[in-house]
Amino acid sequence: MAAPYAVRTEVLEALRAAPPLVQCLTNSVVTNVTANVLLAAGAAPAMVDITGEAGPFAAVASAVLVNLGTPQPEQRLAAVEAVAAAREAGTPWVLDPVAIGALTHRTGLARRLVREAPTVVRGNASEIIALAGLGEGGRGPETSDDVEGAREAALAVARTTRGVVAVSGPVDLITDGTTTIRVGGGSPLLTRMTGGGCALGALIGAFVAASRTGGAPTVTDLDAVVACHAFYSAAAERAAALSDGPGSFQPALLDALYALGPEALALIPVSEEEQ
Amino acid sequence: MAAPYAVRTEVLEALRAAPPLVQCLTNSVVTNVTANVLLAAGAAPAMVDITGEAGPFAAVASAVLVNLGTPQPEQRLAAVEAVAAAREAGTPWVLDPVAIGALTHRTGLARRLVREAPTVVRGNASEIIALAGLGEGGRGPETSDDVEGAREAALAVARTTRGVVAVSGPVDLITDGTTTIRVGGGSPLLTRMTGGGCALGALIGAFVAASRTGGAPTVTDLDAVVACHAFYSAAAERAAALSDGPGSFQPALLDALYALGPEALALIPVSEEEQ
Amino acid sequence: MAAPYAVRTEVLEALRAAPPLVQCLTNSVVTNVTANVLLAAGAAPAMVDITGEAGPFAAVASAVLVNLGTPQPEQRLAAVEAVAAAREAGTPWVLDPVAIGALTHRTGLARRLVREAPTVVRGNASEIIALAGLGEGGRGPETSDDVEGAREAALAVARTTRGVVAVSGPVDLITDGTTTIRVGGGSPLLTRMTGGGCALGALIGAFVAASRTGGAPTVTDLDAVVACHAFYSAAAERAAALSDGPGSFQPALLDALYALGPEALALIPVSEEEQ
Repeated sequence: MAAPYAVRTEVLEALRAAPPLVQCLTNSVVTNVTANVLLAAGAAPAMVDITGEAGPFAAVASAVLVNLGTPQPEQRLAAVEAVAAAREAGTPWVLDPVAIGALTHRTGLARRLVREAPTVVRGNASEIIALAGLGEGGRGPETSDDVEGAREAALAVARTTRGVVAVSGPVDLITDGTTTIRVGGGSPLLTRMTGGGCALGALIGAFVAASRTGGAPTVTDLDAVVACHAFYSAAAERAAALSDGPGSFQPALLDALYALGPEALALIPVSEEEQ
Repeated sequence: MAAPYAVRTEVLEALRAAPPLVQCLTNSVVTNVTANVLLAAGAAPAMVDITGEAGPFAAVASAVLVNLGTPQPEQRLAAVEAVAAAREAGTPWVLDPVAIGALTHRTGLARRLVREAPTVVRGNASEIIALAGLGEGGRGPETSDDVEGAREAALAVARTTRGVVAVSGPVDLITDGTTTIRVGGGSPLLTRMTGGGCALGALIGAFVAASRTGGAPTVTDLDAVVACHAFYSAAAERAAALSDGPGSFQPALLDALYALGPEALALIPVSEEEQ
Repeated sequence: MAAPYAVRTEVLEALRAAPPLVQCLTNSVVTNVTANVLLAAGAAPAMVDITGEAGPFAAVASAVLVNLGTPQPEQRLAAVEAVAAAREAGTPWVLDPVAIGALTHRTGLARRLVREAPTVVRGNASEIIALAGLGEGGRGPETSDDVEGAREAALAVARTTRGVVAVSGPVDLITDGTTTIRVGGGSPLLTRMTGGGCALGALIGAFVAASRTGGAPTVTDLDAVVACHAFYSAAAERAAALSDGPGSFQPALLDALYALGPEALALIPVSEEEQ
């Protein structure tokens, strides 16, 4: 059974009023679109991902994203440095365990970092299942499991991290281990452009940061992640309606992230799982 | 003299029916557009290019691309690892010797890798001439030689690798050392966006993989490469007709790769060289 | 007080007549858009940024860009190598000190490289102030200082390097330490796409190279940089008029860089500061 849930649209207003600076340690395929998604939505990106700079920057950034899509040796060290500094400074941080499971370096690093209490873990079903130790992951960013099949894994990870876990799919599942929210809408074209999910991870960081500093004390991190997913789904729907395929979809998505206001979030189906 | 050649359009159908997973070790300039070209066409990308992961992944990927455009030290090691694993596992792999000739690291690595029997070598005329040891290469991805001037070099490389060699230009030349095919069509705008040729290298990997697993036993690797070039030329023509310059051309190219079906390949002039 | 200044539009004609090859050692976020900006405008990019290749290439390239946005250890070494070779060969080179100030590696490298007489230094106000040792820089590519506040810093840096310094903002300030030019026009959307400023740095290299080789002996490096800024502003204005947001702005910017001719530069307000 599902109950209605009111999306906290004031997080988007807070983000636009005081643009969060999101430090991204992310994969080489999606750096550009990730920065553009943040800029279009109203946040600011900073791709500071080398040792010696990543830690000091994480202490002053509004949020940090650690995405394991192309974990070069230097970036792996920088990720550990950034996470330690983020924890010390209280900076919220997002872990995106791209394609973990069978691949050695990223899987080992993800298992290490998930013990460092990420504020949010975001991934597809296969990745969350692999992170929970319940499966073998996928062969790449394309998931081979479905979101509902990752529900138990998401709850298990959230209870371990005491944070939020977001599983992307046709209907997204977002949980803090107690409350579970589902966000619909969006567009399948998001899976036909690279970085659709990775950029969402960075935007989640921006929303969590905005919710914490924007003067809305009753908004939880879970609420902020849900608001971000709803906003992203609304932008994807609008972009899909205006585009002819995955090529024209990407600029249209950025235009929509730029143009849409809080009222657009109301159009996305969001529900809370009855306990 | 030229004879007609029937493009094996069933390769595109096989690709769409069972999307190949193409591992790309490619240059930092084009990772994004390469992934997007694969996704738009119906294949799946995975940019696994670090040591320790590149080899194991090459053993399970559908195809591997090694592009030498920005050969960082870590990526050079990963390329050697991936190629060894691909050969061991029988995974088809594509070598794109970007800008070899005078530049030390990439030229040395290309000469080493070409001895590892790449399934396909793809490049512009200057690169293929340099790979054959017949010239000094160009100063960058922009070729300074013409395709017909690279015919002997392409034949020589194909006879050495016992694979396929594809030379891109206004009319592409594709040979297995015995049969030589020419593919026309396309658009000069492909040379005004970065990654037009590099992304084609990844798509070639997808087509070869699809032809091998798609239940079309009489389709050779040469046929698969020709089908890929014809498909890419058809998409470029359509995109050029719908765009106002190189900026709008790129999303239009992705839209066309997404939209076009096997029937579009029939519009591209393809001919076989009489022996 | 401001006096009129006649933009040297022949630099754009020289660039189109003989496309300069611009070697870019730049950050991982903007490599793609940087290459596409060069190609659209009529120049040629080459992202040669590894040790052993960067130096030899800088000796034959038309211009070199060193952008410190994501200064990986290998790229830092390659930058030093490229700059030494560029100086030795007389290749003009551009320094873009992205986000220097507090961040250790890039700030140290920028202070080292600025002593190597960069032909042009390009940055936002915070970066130029930090480079002059007059401030602490910003937290990222988004500047926190305004252009006029960086005037003294720009003059100081230009007098030290005996080169040109360009400060980007709503009105750009360009100086050689004696003559100071202001270029208006452009679009705020340039700040909502990543790489808007970074790509301009590469294009500046192309314009300086074109002015030196294009047979216009009375055109100074300062004139070439001003012409580049005016051209970029004109393209940004045209793109903004044709786009719906930062997503559609980027392809429109590339289309405009491709389409606009010398006559478009006359529409941009450019003035010389009275001494």
